[in-house]
Amino acid sequence: MKLDLLFLPSEIRNSDLEEKTVIVIDVLRASSTIVTALNNGAKDIIPVESQEDATRLMQEIGRKYVLLCGERAGQKIEGFDLGNSPFEYTQEVIQDKTLIFCSTNGSRAIVRASPSARVIIGSFINLSSALNYALGSRTEEMILLCSGKEERFSLEDSVCAGMMVAWLSEKLEKNLELSDSAFAGLQIYKQHQKNLLKMLNSSAHGKYLSSLGFQEDLIYCSQVDSLCLVPVLDNGRLIKSTS
Amino acid sequence: MKLDLLFLPSEIRNSDLEEKTVIVIDVLRASSTIVTALNNGAKDIIPVESQEDATRLMQEIGRKYVLLCGERAGQKIEGFDLGNSPFEYTQEVIQDKTLIFCSTNGSRAIVRASPSARVIIGSFINLSSALNYALGSRTEEMILLCSGKEERFSLEDSVCAGMMVAWLSEKLEKNLELSDSAFAGLQIYKQHQKNLLKMLNSSAHGKYLSSLGFQEDLIYCSQVDSLCLVPVLDNGRLIKSTS
Repeated sequence: MKLDLLFLPSEIRNSDLEEKTVIVIDVLRASSTIVTALNNGAKDIIPVESQEDATRLMQEIGRKYVLLCGERAGQKIEGFDLGNSPFEYTQEVIQDKTLIFCSTNGSRAIVRASPSARVIIGSFINLSSALNYALGSRTEEMILLCSGKEERFSLEDSVCAGMMVAWLSEKLEKNLELSDSAFAGLQIYKQHQKNLLKMLNSSAHGKYLSSLGFQEDLIYCSQVDSLCLVPVLDNGRLIKSTS
Repeated sequence: MKLDLLFLPSEIRNSDLEEKTVIVIDVLRASSTIVTALNNGAKDIIPVESQEDATRLMQEIGRKYVLLCGERAGQKIEGFDLGNSPFEYTQEVIQDKTLIFCSTNGSRAIVRASPSARVIIGSFINLSSALNYALGSRTEEMILLCSGKEERFSLEDSVCAGMMVAWLSEKLEKNLELSDSAFAGLQIYKQHQKNLLKMLNSSAHGKYLSSLGFQEDLIYCSQVDSLCLVPVLDNGRLIKSTS
């Protein structure tokens, strides 16, 4: 299998996506929150690129049938129901609900990856499950897509992608062909593998979220394989994978 | 000093460039070729973003006063005088000439960096000289800009940028503040520091250039500090630095 890693969504070329499995990574926090929301019983999640798209879609579906979710600059968008902290997405709040999800980086990356054959949401918290599911699809080419931070490099996404490279390398051994960037991601991961929480705390976005009072989110998002759920994109909606 | 590293020109935000010193890196081959051309006596080099810009500028200045230089897909552009191999830029050919330079990645990155206070061209072959010159400018913030490959990650540029991070870290010690990406670049470099030529030979673009018959270019571009010359951007033209 060929494995590529994109440090930024701007590296996507639509012509490269066909037939490929893409794992979208936004550790802090969209990927982690989406996994959590589906795990806690959300019916489905519709990722959108902009606040305007979210509002328009909400009007189409009907206000009472959806929850508006998302952030700008780490904070809940005014007038929305939920922000981007996984702790907001309790069963009580989201059970059987459709969530319209609009985050600065993650939901945009998901929409941009949508022309590919298969889109999976991955994070530290569901890492092994996401990769096992991806391998089950018997894809010949996989792309690890870091959501980045406003079109800039994100350390936490790159480390998570690098950990996925390490996991796949161990599993597939010589049957894996790494791109230059996948190999680079592996090196970035190795530097941080002993303490992922320390890495999150030291990262630019981790520091920013901590300054907003989201320290607990960092701890939550650093816990490898704490959940087994794999969100997959199906006709523009993220749902729980069935296998 | 604050040190940032951009893996791709798409990460540039013009508002971030002001007051900063930017080192533009395109190891294979624009940076290396520009250093070589000025070292071998070219009067100046005008980087342009497109073939059309090159032709228009040539008509403005006059065909007989300039050399048209550049590549697409690694090969000399049809009708141009020179391609992008440093070996073409001999004293005999370029002495006292103005070169209009149009490469796929490097010249575009230089143009995009041009709003910054200071633009320097760096590569393995002039690494220490470029950094010493940059430090001499007493800038408070420096950006290492990888040119990438058609808006995708470039291993060789990232390793060179990482080597610059290592050099600056040793020189400035605690007076250097690394961004997340600068630190990541350092990790990528460490994996390859023992054999830069091997890294170039193993990189996607290195393999491609070798397939075109440019193996000697890779050897040339891997030689750290083989030249002392520092190209700097002055009113849209790259000239030899005077200090």
